[in-house]
Amino acid sequence: MHFTSEQRLDDGVIEREFSLGEIPGILWTPASASASAPAPLILLGHPPLGLRKMYPRLVARARRSAADGFATATIELPGSGERPRWAAAEQARADLRRALEAGEPVSDEIVDALVLPLVDKVVPEWQAALDALLSLPGICGPVGYSGGVISIGIRLAVVEPRIAAAALFAGSFVPRAMFEEARQVTIPLHVLLQWDDEGNHRQAALDLFDAFGSQEKTLHANMGGHAGVPQFAGDAAARFFARHLS
Amino acid sequence: MHFTSEQRLDDGVIEREFSLGEIPGILWTPASASASAPAPLILLGHPPLGLRKMYPRLVARARRSAADGFATATIELPGSGERPRWAAAEQARADLRRALEAGEPVSDEIVDALVLPLVDKVVPEWQAALDALLSLPGICGPVGYSGGVISIGIRLAVVEPRIAAAALFAGSFVPRAMFEEARQVTIPLHVLLQWDDEGNHRQAALDLFDAFGSQEKTLHANMGGHAGVPQFAGDAAARFFARHLS
Repeated sequence: MHFTSEQRLDDGVIEREFSLGEIPGILWTPASASASAPAPLILLGHPPLGLRKMYPRLVARARRSAADGFATATIELPGSGERPRWAAAEQARADLRRALEAGEPVSDEIVDALVLPLVDKVVPEWQAALDALLSLPGICGPVGYSGGVISIGIRLAVVEPRIAAAALFAGSFVPRAMFEEARQVTIPLHVLLQWDDEGNHRQAALDLFDAFGSQEKTLHANMGGHAGVPQFAGDAAARFFARHLS
Repeated sequence: MHFTSEQRLDDGVIEREFSLGEIPGILWTPASASASAPAPLILLGHPPLGLRKMYPRLVARARRSAADGFATATIELPGSGERPRWAAAEQARADLRRALEAGEPVSDEIVDALVLPLVDKVVPEWQAALDALLSLPGICGPVGYSGGVISIGIRLAVVEPRIAAAALFAGSFVPRAMFEEARQVTIPLHVLLQWDDEGNHRQAALDLFDAFGSQEKTLHANMGGHAGVPQFAGDAAARFFARHLS
């Protein structure tokens, strides 16, 4: 991992862009973090729209987390942003678009092709990023995962013991195979559901919540569509991490 | 309304028992409340088990609310505690017990008989209590309703304009007629659902949440049975009232 830029935001948060091999990423640390007082880390998940497009929302979440004493980091997803095109992923997204535009039901095949290869590829990348991030002074565990793609969060919660808590956004298609993985999740979960999410199937989200094996799991359902998460729902997720990572 | 006892709890909260005609009740006010700095009021709903039996849970909720600057009050339900026996209610409860013990489905007739007469009788009593409580120095609106019986909270939210926000506990049977009333509710709602509530039908609770007409409504679902509401869920309800009544 090497840093390619560093700037101090107006609230004192340090924002550093980095490269991990071919993968670009961003690390935000609170002004208070130091080698003797390291900040627990939250990994910021996001949809495959490219870090540049997602930046305004990501930096807002990073600032909020920094105010609570947490470092945050994110990496570019494969096939997104400046990373090389990924033909299989583009094909899957084109198939999804076609089904949605035709008003057809989205088949299991489309969902599997859209999500499963992404999960298989991204999770080891997140783990490599974790190795690098946790070796930095000023950053420590326990680690949280926050956001979507929810299937990435599920797989990470199952395979990565350094992830101690996850706030998952039930806002994306979930392959049937991930329901089985969800049963193996045991860490505390905070699941956010937008009740009228246009890109989501409400009953599937409720079934997924039911499937999680965690003893502590909370579902927060709010009104509105995919991008309409109310401010107080973000506050509640922040308190969830304060309870479990501090 | 006349007061029958007054004591100061160890955290400075003033607890006063009162009678409103034949109805016993309890009022808790924070030490800070005064005629010049009155405290907004939260009505504490509870199941028909008698105030004496419910007291430990009620006083805990009252203390928590007082710490946030709220006054709280509750009244005995008809047919409960020291109030005269109510033959129709006892018959309905016996019918419910019989169905549950026989492992039979609880019929609409049983649910209607159990809940609808209670709602019809209690809501005017709560309104009379509100008249009396809001005329006291140190107490003011906006008013919140907190807890069960959820059908009582629904009716109050529809007919009583002084109720500005409600945190409802989805832990009791709901007559079909109340789903129609739920569509007429427009105040902000915070709905608490225990995912494995043994005395509740999860899908009915989700359908009821969907039915509410409120633009701001949030569902908080947590693991555990009827009495297993986690501490952090109480904290979240408290923050809901702080946002809407302060």
